Amino acid sequence: MSGKKKPGSDLAALNKKKLKSVDEILEKVKRLGQRVRAEPEVQKTLAELNLPHACREVVDKSADAVLDEIETSILLVAASVLRGEGFTYTLPNRAKGNQLYVPELDRIVLKDSQSHRTFANISTCRKAVITTRILQLVHELCTKRIHVTKRDLFYTDVKLFEDQGNSDGILDDLACMLGCTRSSLHVVASEKGVVVGRLTFREDGDLIDCRRMGVGGKAIPPNIDKVDSIESDAMFILLVEKDAAFMRLAEDRFYNTYPCIIITAKGQPDVATRLFLRKLKQTLRIPVLALVDSDPYGLKILSVYMKGSMNMSYDSSNLTTPDIKWLGVRPSDLDRFSIPEQCRLPMTDEDIKTGKKLLEEDFVRANPDWVKELEIMVTTKVKAEIQALSSFGFQYLSQQYLPLKLQGGDWI
Amino acid sequence: MSGKKKPGSDLAALNKKKLKSVDEILEKVKRLGQRVRAEPEVQKTLAELNLPHACREVVDKSADAVLDEIETSILLVAASVLRGEGFTYTLPNRAKGNQLYVPELDRIVLKDSQSHRTFANISTCRKAVITTRILQLVHELCTKRIHVTKRDLFYTDVKLFEDQGNSDGILDDLACMLGCTRSSLHVVASEKGVVVGRLTFREDGDLIDCRRMGVGGKAIPPNIDKVDSIESDAMFILLVEKDAAFMRLAEDRFYNTYPCIIITAKGQPDVATRLFLRKLKQTLRIPVLALVDSDPYGLKILSVYMKGSMNMSYDSSNLTTPDIKWLGVRPSDLDRFSIPEQCRLPMTDEDIKTGKKLLEEDFVRANPDWVKELEIMVTTKVKAEIQALSSFGFQYLSQQYLPLKLQGGDWI
Repeated sequence: MSGKKKPGSDLAALNKKKLKSVDEILEKVKRLGQRVRAEPEVQKTLAELNLPHACREVVDKSADAVLDEIETSILLVAASVLRGEGFTYTLPNRAKGNQLYVPELDRIVLKDSQSHRTFANISTCRKAVITTRILQLVHELCTKRIHVTKRDLFYTDVKLFEDQGNSDGILDDLACMLGCTRSSLHVVASEKGVVVGRLTFREDGDLIDCRRMGVGGKAIPPNIDKVDSIESDAMFILLVEKDAAFMRLAEDRFYNTYPCIIITAKGQPDVATRLFLRKLKQTLRIPVLALVDSDPYGLKILSVYMKGSMNMSYDSSNLTTPDIKWLGVRPSDLDRFSIPEQCRLPMTDEDIKTGKKLLEEDFVRANPDWVKELEIMVTTKVKAEIQALSSFGFQYLSQQYLPLKLQGGDWI
Repeated sequence: MSGKKKPGSDLAALNKKKLKSVDEILEKVKRLGQRVRAEPEVQKTLAELNLPHACREVVDKSADAVLDEIETSILLVAASVLRGEGFTYTLPNRAKGNQLYVPELDRIVLKDSQSHRTFANISTCRKAVITTRILQLVHELCTKRIHVTKRDLFYTDVKLFEDQGNSDGILDDLACMLGCTRSSLHVVASEKGVVVGRLTFREDGDLIDCRRMGVGGKAIPPNIDKVDSIESDAMFILLVEKDAAFMRLAEDRFYNTYPCIIITAKGQPDVATRLFLRKLKQTLRIPVLALVDSDPYGLKILSVYMKGSMNMSYDSSNLTTPDIKWLGVRPSDLDRFSIPEQCRLPMTDEDIKTGKKLLEEDFVRANPDWVKELEIMVTTKVKAEIQALSSFGFQYLSQQYLPLKLQGGDWI
């Protein structure tokens, strides 16, 4: 053990002196908010782009609209059967080759390759039957206005579906066919995200006040269509990768001093949290600042929030929140905030491979500052967790690191 | 496909006829509640048992009490150093051989084997230093009244701790040494449980009304010592293994018709959910009914709630909720509720092994009805998930299965 003791504490004291008043600290994020609200409200739609390929997106639809779509499909089937022609469903192809990243939209969409599912054909008969059965089940869900999980759906007819992969896959097909999101079909993923801060909303009629949710926060609802009346005086949304950091900020009531909404999905983002973040951003039009680990995985998580994941590509426009600012912990922070050597971890070969792959991705290359940071990471071969900031004291994150970041407008 | 269509729906209609009025349905659970409240309030303590071994339990202590304990320990160390004797910590041994299941308490406790950690001894010097450092850090946490995770604690001195296993282990040692629970040390696990229903409480001063928490519910707080003013008119607590079932019950507002509190840890129970359940049971003195999968894993989960897990044995009395009733889904339910063959899953060899092992465990053998059910499971070699009930309709669980179970007093 060296003679220099507690270098962190000295630095912490130094940083504290640099901090200005709360109003001054918030000045830059206030200006960012003005810029966000000044942007045109309506994003470009697929139709406006006139792409060379015919493309397909799905949109959120009300239960009544989904019921209309289902009834129309079934009437077409009935008419076809009555004409003595049997019946065929025409479905968009969800395979990778049919997916396209659209820079103007900054999202992944589906190209318009289609497949046909004919009842009177031995190779597609079973799938046509399952499709019909799931149409019937979704009709029931939308009529009753209730939500279930994919697992529940599978168990309603195990004999027919045989494997959950069959019912899951055809459910996604149906969302594409009916042109609506999977959550519009009233089939939801289980939620794991939590939220606290300067936010009130109604969930299934209940008024939820996220300023008064203790330290644990409010569980983010699995069914976003039951959320309305969103109100907030927050200046920004703080998107946190891990629940340890969330807990620190919630316990310190960070949002009382710095008006914000704090959200975490506790690691890999789930669909419910992504939908919730998107809805907040769209409704409130305030900036989203992200606090993630300084490693490729942290960036991957950001990319899922911002660009969506491949297997939900058809649904991407409804799940993604473009324009998330990377606040920290960034590779360049490690030196700038003098993170001690022993809190920095060597990257594994797998980490480095993932980092280099990220450098080739469109959404990273679109932002030169992100490229710079990622290059520091793969060159130094060093990563660090948000918790590395605890080496300067348990409350360094909430009392110094984040205020300094905000004050400096230090996001990219 | 056979000629008999929708056997489930017919059965559902039949069951519906069997259901009486809500008051009649609740009659048996009401009587169970009276029995629960009639039991002597104070459980036997370790001291009253006069066991042949000297045994050790830890208890919840206030931050001030923990500060007192730490200061006493350090004063003893200082006095010893001043006497020129160096210093030694005396710590309880947490190894398996020092653990004991006490049937009278229905809990695992630690026997009184101890180990010594001397600073001036090359084999224990490092551990003595880490112990001192963690005492200092916990002193800071208790003074500031803030909570951190084990990961945060590790990062405050990575150079010394080197590996999180070191700081975690010594933290548990310290809890034993100071005679208090790990959560009394203000080091908490991240929470993943959620709660809805007929319950209000205060969390860090905020009034939380779990009747108005929408469908997502309230995230269970990581720090139980910030929870107080628990109030409820519930007749029972419904402990649910999985969040799909939780979501169904929350969306159907099951607790409006059948006054209850619904809790889930979404699988394997975490410490925060176990502490929360225990606190509810102790405060409200109402029965706890469990809804788990009909497989050995479902029973294992019950055992963690009821008996604790081995690696937290020293803390078991503060984490366990004895006397949880197994409501369902039980192996005998599969035939009694005519769960279709295709919703029953074959048990793997591993499942059967786990089932047979459970049959040998004290807490199962103590309840002949549980033994019977487990014997059905390992004999038929069949398991089933809660969601298997969806084969009778999405709302069969909330509208028929659970009311029928309550009406029949069908728990063991």
